[in-house]
Amino acid sequence: MDSVEVPEVVVLRLPLYVRALSQLMSESIDVVSSQQLGGLLQMTPAQIRKDLSYFGRFGKQGRGYDVRFLLHELQEILGLDREWRACLVGVGRLGRAIINYPGFYRENFRIVAAFDGDRAQVGSTIGEFNVQSMDELSDTVIDKKISIGIVAVPAQQAQNVIDVLIENNIKGILNYAPVAAKVPMNIVVRNIDPVLSLQSMTFYLRELE
Amino acid sequence: MDSVEVPEVVVLRLPLYVRALSQLMSESIDVVSSQQLGGLLQMTPAQIRKDLSYFGRFGKQGRGYDVRFLLHELQEILGLDREWRACLVGVGRLGRAIINYPGFYRENFRIVAAFDGDRAQVGSTIGEFNVQSMDELSDTVIDKKISIGIVAVPAQQAQNVIDVLIENNIKGILNYAPVAAKVPMNIVVRNIDPVLSLQSMTFYLRELE
Repeated sequence: MDSVEVPEVVVLRLPLYVRALSQLMSESIDVVSSQQLGGLLQMTPAQIRKDLSYFGRFGKQGRGYDVRFLLHELQEILGLDREWRACLVGVGRLGRAIINYPGFYRENFRIVAAFDGDRAQVGSTIGEFNVQSMDELSDTVIDKKISIGIVAVPAQQAQNVIDVLIENNIKGILNYAPVAAKVPMNIVVRNIDPVLSLQSMTFYLRELE
Repeated sequence: MDSVEVPEVVVLRLPLYVRALSQLMSESIDVVSSQQLGGLLQMTPAQIRKDLSYFGRFGKQGRGYDVRFLLHELQEILGLDREWRACLVGVGRLGRAIINYPGFYRENFRIVAAFDGDRAQVGSTIGEFNVQSMDELSDTVIDKKISIGIVAVPAQQAQNVIDVLIENNIKGILNYAPVAAKVPMNIVVRNIDPVLSLQSMTFYLRELE
């Protein structure tokens, strides 16, 4: 399997498959057809089969997919069969909400350090974290084997923080700041921004009115 | 221009173009090359030209794109040249954070009503909102010309809330609940879920280690 051949749009959909399959498992459903899976994912059965074909043959013709097997395979493909460690930069209102969000931990993403550029925040305690200064980022990233940086600083500071993270060998950025970050091609950025999501929605809504 | 021909992945990228172009305008940059735009968007110049080619010819060969013109055109294509009204369902900790988020209003998305299924919340005040009961949703959606529903209820309640929104002619769902919502094909769902974003990131990070 060579990921270069897998279109990014397919990779972006795989977590939705994982979620849908997890739901089916929790409903004790053992086998699912591409038709049923399509219903859960707003996709046609043909799209489902095409997406999964990038990773080998998961279903038997006319038999549907084994839910547990497909779920485990996709989790492995996505690298979800291990723990990933992240640091948070920015412990304002948003950063505190992120630290307290139980969803990360539940899915094997662990925030293991919190930083802030504001000296007034450094040394304060949030949950189990002692907020550290940006000067400590280099050592902490190495010591705690951090591979993901979560950026929750104001827009004006975001690019600078992202640059520092990349200098310290962070390859994945989860960016909550409403900016188009400038990063090298080998860095993976995901923007969490409800406005971006709404703006790609209205393209379709506009036509329905 | 027929949107049926535009791949969804292109539509999903257009808000990123809008953001990058807005940043360029704020830096008083009048003309941008596909090379420069690619640098901001982690895309190749060829991908940029291909994306924009779905909507006509925006650039002159060798001249680059007029930033202001391209920005305005893309805003119009996305339907961002008007106000969109949304209602929020769920006024717990997350719902309150959503109401207080300034980004929506700044970009012409207005939350105009807030609902909660919990009788104890109904009648309470959050910012300028009087929390309404779900029984009032039908009338309020019509009265206030609401086209988008923002779902911030716990996972177990999300599908039911989404069903009610769709029954009331809401076509766009911004879903913060960690569930794979079952909706008809003509409904546009956007999931705001940092875990989904991280799970599509690790596919790439896994290979870098």
